[in-house]
Amino acid sequence: MKKIPNHVHLPIDRMPKAWYNIQADMPNKLPPMRHPVTGEIAPPAAMEALFSPSLVEQEFTQERYIDIPERVRECYAQYRPSPLYRAYALEKALGTPAHIYYKYEGNNPSGSHKLNSAIPQAYYNAQDGVKRITTETGAGQWGTALAVATQMLGMALDVYMVRVSAQQKPYRKMLMEAFGANVIASPSDTTAAGRAILAEMPDTPGSLGMAISEAVEVAMADPAVKYCLGSVLNHVVLHQTVIGLELMDQLDMIEEVADIVIGCNGGGSNFGGIAFPLLGRDLREGKKHTRYIAVEPSACPKLTQGVYSYDFTDAIGMTPALPMYTLGHGFIPQGIHAGGLRYHADSPILSRLYHDGLIEAVAVDQTHVFESALLFAKHEIILPAPESAHAIAAAIDAARECIATGEEKVIVFGLSGNGNFDLAAYSNYLSGNVVDAKFSDDQKQQGAATLPDYGVKL
Amino acid sequence: MKKIPNHVHLPIDRMPKAWYNIQADMPNKLPPMRHPVTGEIAPPAAMEALFSPSLVEQEFTQERYIDIPERVRECYAQYRPSPLYRAYALEKALGTPAHIYYKYEGNNPSGSHKLNSAIPQAYYNAQDGVKRITTETGAGQWGTALAVATQMLGMALDVYMVRVSAQQKPYRKMLMEAFGANVIASPSDTTAAGRAILAEMPDTPGSLGMAISEAVEVAMADPAVKYCLGSVLNHVVLHQTVIGLELMDQLDMIEEVADIVIGCNGGGSNFGGIAFPLLGRDLREGKKHTRYIAVEPSACPKLTQGVYSYDFTDAIGMTPALPMYTLGHGFIPQGIHAGGLRYHADSPILSRLYHDGLIEAVAVDQTHVFESALLFAKHEIILPAPESAHAIAAAIDAARECIATGEEKVIVFGLSGNGNFDLAAYSNYLSGNVVDAKFSDDQKQQGAATLPDYGVKL
Repeated sequence: MKKIPNHVHLPIDRMPKAWYNIQADMPNKLPPMRHPVTGEIAPPAAMEALFSPSLVEQEFTQERYIDIPERVRECYAQYRPSPLYRAYALEKALGTPAHIYYKYEGNNPSGSHKLNSAIPQAYYNAQDGVKRITTETGAGQWGTALAVATQMLGMALDVYMVRVSAQQKPYRKMLMEAFGANVIASPSDTTAAGRAILAEMPDTPGSLGMAISEAVEVAMADPAVKYCLGSVLNHVVLHQTVIGLELMDQLDMIEEVADIVIGCNGGGSNFGGIAFPLLGRDLREGKKHTRYIAVEPSACPKLTQGVYSYDFTDAIGMTPALPMYTLGHGFIPQGIHAGGLRYHADSPILSRLYHDGLIEAVAVDQTHVFESALLFAKHEIILPAPESAHAIAAAIDAARECIATGEEKVIVFGLSGNGNFDLAAYSNYLSGNVVDAKFSDDQKQQGAATLPDYGVKL
Repeated sequence: MKKIPNHVHLPIDRMPKAWYNIQADMPNKLPPMRHPVTGEIAPPAAMEALFSPSLVEQEFTQERYIDIPERVRECYAQYRPSPLYRAYALEKALGTPAHIYYKYEGNNPSGSHKLNSAIPQAYYNAQDGVKRITTETGAGQWGTALAVATQMLGMALDVYMVRVSAQQKPYRKMLMEAFGANVIASPSDTTAAGRAILAEMPDTPGSLGMAISEAVEVAMADPAVKYCLGSVLNHVVLHQTVIGLELMDQLDMIEEVADIVIGCNGGGSNFGGIAFPLLGRDLREGKKHTRYIAVEPSACPKLTQGVYSYDFTDAIGMTPALPMYTLGHGFIPQGIHAGGLRYHADSPILSRLYHDGLIEAVAVDQTHVFESALLFAKHEIILPAPESAHAIAAAIDAARECIATGEEKVIVFGLSGNGNFDLAAYSNYLSGNVVDAKFSDDQKQQGAATLPDYGVKL
């Protein structure tokens, strides 16, 4: 038998008791958020119209460790700690001397890492007296995670689902409903925003921006209703660090030191979740050995082609402007299959760390992603989500480099979700209908033109 | 923290090294198989036209333990040992003093226990020089499992998928294709049988019987092609005992003794897989403490309403007749959502043990099954396959009895698969469109009339 098992199991009693907040260890702190119209510095309380007070407090805390409430740990214990796998079969197929590991977050009914933040968000909202949560969903991973979490914690949930997604992904909708969520195709007649849109464009396929408008309107109208977001914000990234904290412990158990840590990058919570606990330790200890690589699609290259600027998190500027790497909130990426990576901007924390040269970024093409996903599936027998497959592509590239150099590098990537609900995308690829969606100079200029200008240099 | 963790983890080095064959410990041996037409006793070699010699040998062996080949254990290690979960959240929701455990087989890309036999079947076929495997699939679990297994072991696979299933379950088809299988909607023009059916009924939705005919024809025509079956046969049940062997070890680890072991029952491989290792130990030690309960749908009640008789495993008698509990191979159950439990007959081993009073059977209604499934999903956050949910319904019934009696019974059930590809069924139930499909006296008589009569008393 091999010395390191396929499955590096972390016992339940070693599941983290606190989340890790990298804001405590960042060499440069985050610039403040600003009012979307005036550009004035906005106080934390500006977020409380939408988000529950406990989560707003978490958004700005500089404490290094935040205790995970006992009830949240109980919920986590129903699917965590998550496995760390050694990809022996993939290593063999590639013929690489590299040691490839992946931390798998797809073994829960939401199918992705999103549940790690959905549970505490539902919990803190309940603690704050919130009775009903609203959110929007496009691809459906976040909506599903929040449906599972609100059902575990006995809360009501309205999910505004982009109409065309609800039509094209009926199974995602059914899954949310099986977990008790109220799923509303957006635009809908349940909000003033929805009714106004429908009056003007009765046949619109909907958009994430429209769905956000509806979810936000409902939350704004009633103090017992709050809104939740599945990525980007600091508190979401904080909750996801449970991944990286477990990973650190698992790597210590098998006495491996990561040379490269890789995660796919949409709004930043997956990448931050796996990378920040290790990066934070490096920062505290002054170590620079490990490389941290965020992987984005070539069609939506906010880190490799965007700018570090204030921008809106939504499409129209209803929430405070945040300091982020962004392609402009008006940027619309080409239709790629990794819906979770089509976001125009990035987590403020991740953006700052990237700006400071502490993490790297790479953009990969869609066909390379699918090719890598199927190679991975063939040998590791998990069909990855197309989002997660971006990390696989980068990991395989790194492992192939080791063939040439002979280095036994330790490559760790986050497998953030499974592809059980992405089969149409795989079928498209296998039929030869997936092409690489490139990012053009025109797109770059048009997107950048939508950035707000507050006369502030970041 | 609780004394017994949610997740009873079995380390990889305790994964079973041999399967358990209950034929060695049965008080009454299996009657021989017979020629489907003449009723003469058929020799084992009669199966070799269809099945690879190694598997035919396993079908008849009386050895108690069969070593699991090292390569098969390597493949198993990519998803096994499977977790045993303590259902604390469900217990609390029910308010039962019972200890409820479930052994979960859904954490692999096929989504069910079927992979446990698909891997050794692919392996032994490869050992015997077989280059291509054929099979049929209805609901798709078996086809998916064999696709994953043949891809892991580098073999080709043709899956004849019932045409209406391929249309209604496009994601199942795509999943098999993502794992490299050649999926053919049946009836097809690739076989003489298919062409004959199409000539007569060009618009037929297809049936499992037609798909079997095509898969068998292809296997019969070429010595380098063999056919594989996902349940019923002794060697399939044998491979599935890896579940019960792990379970025995896991229960010993936490010092619990099962009062009741429950499994859903279609062709018998899931139930046999979880129950036979424990039952075999009871038989050897003369213990009668544990109850073993096979759960079937009320609409297809082969154990509770069928007869112990020789019958065909397929719809038309192409294979030897086996001694089974059966409703008659001509019986067509009403359209229930648990496609995997609609089979007319049962594994010969399970049938014999039931006939000898060593296991019990219970039939449950479809609406009770879905209600139980959603209660389970709400608290244990796994959406079960409708098949597996039959076991959940029986386990919940048993746990509710303990509320009245105050007994802390240890109830263990097999959660054989997840419901990620059964969302249409859940959606139907939530929309109020699922009704209990009853079994009528007419159906019973019509089915029994199709039994072959060889003048032999079992």
